[in-house]
Amino acid sequence: MDPSDLPCYADVEAAATRIAAHAHRTPVLTSRTLDARLQAQVFIKAEQFQRVGAFKFRGACNAIAAMAPARRAAGVIAYSSGNHAQAVALAARLHDTRATVLMPADAPRAKVEATRGYGAQIQFFDRHTESREQLCAALVAERGLTLVPPFDHPDVIAGQGTATRELLQDTGPLDALVVGLGGGGLLGGACLAATALSPGCQLYGVEPEAGNDGQQSLQAGQVVTIAPPRTVADGATTTFLGRYTFAILRRHVRSIVTVSDAQLVEAMAFLAERMKLLVEPTACLGLAALLAGALDVRGQRVGLILSGGNVDLDSYARLLQTARGP
Amino acid sequence: MDPSDLPCYADVEAAATRIAAHAHRTPVLTSRTLDARLQAQVFIKAEQFQRVGAFKFRGACNAIAAMAPARRAAGVIAYSSGNHAQAVALAARLHDTRATVLMPADAPRAKVEATRGYGAQIQFFDRHTESREQLCAALVAERGLTLVPPFDHPDVIAGQGTATRELLQDTGPLDALVVGLGGGGLLGGACLAATALSPGCQLYGVEPEAGNDGQQSLQAGQVVTIAPPRTVADGATTTFLGRYTFAILRRHVRSIVTVSDAQLVEAMAFLAERMKLLVEPTACLGLAALLAGALDVRGQRVGLILSGGNVDLDSYARLLQTARGP
Repeated sequence: MDPSDLPCYADVEAAATRIAAHAHRTPVLTSRTLDARLQAQVFIKAEQFQRVGAFKFRGACNAIAAMAPARRAAGVIAYSSGNHAQAVALAARLHDTRATVLMPADAPRAKVEATRGYGAQIQFFDRHTESREQLCAALVAERGLTLVPPFDHPDVIAGQGTATRELLQDTGPLDALVVGLGGGGLLGGACLAATALSPGCQLYGVEPEAGNDGQQSLQAGQVVTIAPPRTVADGATTTFLGRYTFAILRRHVRSIVTVSDAQLVEAMAFLAERMKLLVEPTACLGLAALLAGALDVRGQRVGLILSGGNVDLDSYARLLQTARGP
Repeated sequence: MDPSDLPCYADVEAAATRIAAHAHRTPVLTSRTLDARLQAQVFIKAEQFQRVGAFKFRGACNAIAAMAPARRAAGVIAYSSGNHAQAVALAARLHDTRATVLMPADAPRAKVEATRGYGAQIQFFDRHTESREQLCAALVAERGLTLVPPFDHPDVIAGQGTATRELLQDTGPLDALVVGLGGGGLLGGACLAATALSPGCQLYGVEPEAGNDGQQSLQAGQVVTIAPPRTVADGATTTFLGRYTFAILRRHVRSIVTVSDAQLVEAMAFLAERMKLLVEPTACLGLAALLAGALDVRGQRVGLILSGGNVDLDSYARLLQTARGP
């Protein structure tokens, strides 16, 4: 990909302006206990308090806000059963347009209801017999809808970059920034913002052990596709990086490390017990890497982004019990 | 009690100055979902993010800071197995003095360890054969320690009032303020702050159904003592109001309503699911009353204080499962 096609920090600034009226400026939190344990100064950007409960709102909102008005008015479409679905649904409603969301017929009812609650029209498909990509292409062609991709789009990446921009505005320059990744939208956006606002900052990605396609891709120098991983980090089960995200990560990310599901659950319990923060397992990737010692940040000023807090309460309760189990 | 003996708003201001270097200014949070459900504008003061995870730090810190230096240097004592124990332990350490905390020998190990972790010396007693009041009086006499009571002390009440002072500074005048109560320290402090900063504000107390001594006391016009209640709101199991707190509540509180344990757990699940906030059951008293319709606040600007977030993770998980049970 031609570097001039990649989004840059100016796009993050433009995104910040576009989403300002809709997105929350989420708080940056600290913990004396965590700092003592890591012998570092850690700044936690709490995106579980973002609208729809996850950073995904930033990218979806920016992508929809950036569309030409006539195109936007024709409606948008997304395929996701997770946070991106709710993000597109709400962002569309806020821009007076209509979102169609493709979801597998067996998607959890809570996620379907939440997405419908934000005003989207849900279209179900059978994930065993139908291809969501083909269905989506057909709807785009028939109805003139515009696809809002979950991560691999310059406006989506720039939108996610606003989280890191706010973090660095609040903290000043950092030595390291640790961000979990699935498709790499949040980490890609972090690269754009950190490069401009904290040039010396080392950027680290964290993936679930079972889904380390990003780590493999950086090592191989090309996008590696893996089989769908099984992990509690259900927001990081993408099987390949995007073209844009790979190109950005390759230029800016120092390394991608992995954590186990047990380490994710330990980090989730730490956030609950010590910081009174309720987050989804995927949000724990960065903290899990730090608590497990996968990254040495002693003496450093470290940024961390908690990606979201959308977890079924029953699953959450069961995971906490695992962490405290015999 | 002579009204001139009661603390007033000037004491809250003095407390704010004393604790400023130590206490967190906790955030005030809002929820579109909650506002829509209650048809009101609700402002939530999140004291689970206070030091030691509960508002209790404010009162303990103020009481210890206000002591004459020689007296403070001789050490302080408290009896509590809950948030007050940790609050006194930390506040003492921050003021370079020593806290002794009396705890029943069968107190939960996590609470003992947390209190010890803040630097307190724990002294156990057998709650079946020994009186903590007598033990405490003996230690006060022998060692020259000063008791920091959990709620019924002007400096403790004034310290707790700083939570409401901050809330009202952030929100401006409110129509109603809803505060849970055990001994009435937080609600008493709220009265002092609201009377000065938001004179028209209606003050409401909320107790667990099983432990409605405050409600009975206001109705009877004198302090009523009840048997120890069984409720998930373990921070509101005091069996009588204090002399100071009763005198303040009687003057300023419009009414005290009650909620069931099931309503507390529903409110806890709401905070988890919709706001990503992890709190202890006692912290849910105010919200439970609003969600249950025990108070009509339609069209109003309403303040709510979440008192703390110290709950054993396993209990928390089990309670969430109750809320979502069959």
